[in-house]
Amino acid sequence: MTNKYELIYEGKAKRVFSHNDEDKVIIEFKDDATAFNALKKAKFEGKGKLNCLISAKIFELLIKNNIPTHFLELKNDNSMIANKIKVIPLEIVLRNTAYGSLCKQTTIKPGTVLINPLIDIYLKNDELNDPLITKDRIALMNIISSQDLDLILDLTLKINGILKRFFKMIQLQLVDFKLEFGYDSKNNILLGDEISPDNCRLWDLNQKDDKIISLDKDRFRNDLGGLIEAYSEINKRINDFYLTQFKK
Amino acid sequence: MTNKYELIYEGKAKRVFSHNDEDKVIIEFKDDATAFNALKKAKFEGKGKLNCLISAKIFELLIKNNIPTHFLELKNDNSMIANKIKVIPLEIVLRNTAYGSLCKQTTIKPGTVLINPLIDIYLKNDELNDPLITKDRIALMNIISSQDLDLILDLTLKINGILKRFFKMIQLQLVDFKLEFGYDSKNNILLGDEISPDNCRLWDLNQKDDKIISLDKDRFRNDLGGLIEAYSEINKRINDFYLTQFKK
Repeated sequence: MTNKYELIYEGKAKRVFSHNDEDKVIIEFKDDATAFNALKKAKFEGKGKLNCLISAKIFELLIKNNIPTHFLELKNDNSMIANKIKVIPLEIVLRNTAYGSLCKQTTIKPGTVLINPLIDIYLKNDELNDPLITKDRIALMNIISSQDLDLILDLTLKINGILKRFFKMIQLQLVDFKLEFGYDSKNNILLGDEISPDNCRLWDLNQKDDKIISLDKDRFRNDLGGLIEAYSEINKRINDFYLTQFKK
Repeated sequence: MTNKYELIYEGKAKRVFSHNDEDKVIIEFKDDATAFNALKKAKFEGKGKLNCLISAKIFELLIKNNIPTHFLELKNDNSMIANKIKVIPLEIVLRNTAYGSLCKQTTIKPGTVLINPLIDIYLKNDELNDPLITKDRIALMNIISSQDLDLILDLTLKINGILKRFFKMIQLQLVDFKLEFGYDSKNNILLGDEISPDNCRLWDLNQKDDKIISLDKDRFRNDLGGLIEAYSEINKRINDFYLTQFKK
């Protein structure tokens, strides 16, 4: 058996390679960071590794809670083996607290806690700048059946329940997050991409005043500095949590 | 009884004045044209009058078909008397054929005839650039109850049926149109604003090849020239239609 990995796809933050098993891929996390549809770019040494390790832990948590994901196992610190999926070109954003683009496109004030989580769907299309899309437009473009879309939205709400509870236990407020889904070779819908501070807004609850302490990509988007320190803190809290659990 | 009219509101294309009857207003149509959220501006002598006359005729047609509208009567060639309404800050766009912003925000090709009409809703907010809005965002912002929103969307589909049929009789393809609604003093929902080539895309069906001949504000948006000639042609076809009907 040979071990020649072929580059299948290179995205802004990840490279996807072929695997000996044609139903699997190897996903390598890069140190590159982009924001505002890649208008802003930078490189943070160690980011790829941190996102890979954090994602692996979160995927394990979700799988334990019966969420179907593409994650199979870590290959090394900055790459994982995953089920090969045909990505559905939609970005599903769930918001527990209003922040970021939502507040630029509505009159809702940043920081407003939403009584019911809001799901915004964006078309995954760099050329068009990932625009907000309505269910009627999705139907018109034949991107996905309405049954499969409902299934994805239902999964997103379930994932939110699991993640919100988990992050709260490690003193983090899950403000919002972006998910991507895809079909495996048997046409099952699996959660894809990553779950990391690159696509989750996480605010530190370990502080007394009302100031927002972002421990996520907003440190890069809004030039706050300390991105690697923030991502390392998330990784540390997750590992400490599992170590404590193990000891009990 | 005095006849002092007070300016209540001045928009991009209309002025609204008070009326002796406090449940009514006088709407004066201006010659100003704006596009792309007023980034592009011009003045076309006679446009106000044409839009006022066209709108009056279309409102009469809709009222005859049991659509509740704010229109009461023409006051003169460029102003009408209407029921005073509290405008709901949503722009309801119905599309029969894909064109304009839809094709910049999706991969749907311009000119694609939509099997089912698509309704896009935009937040009426100049500062935010009238962004596309989803039903979930509307619910979150408490703009309107979901029952009233359903009522408005139902009215929009009915209006489309009436207008599509009417414009086809005068050899015009109704590509899309934008509606605004509001509440009168008794909380009834009424169609407001205007129905004119300023907010309807109308293509000439009086031609043999497949070339698009816009007889609407796209003549200004896309620098095609001949705006007044196009609006006059619409007004003429409407008047000729009613004259013919009367003679029968």
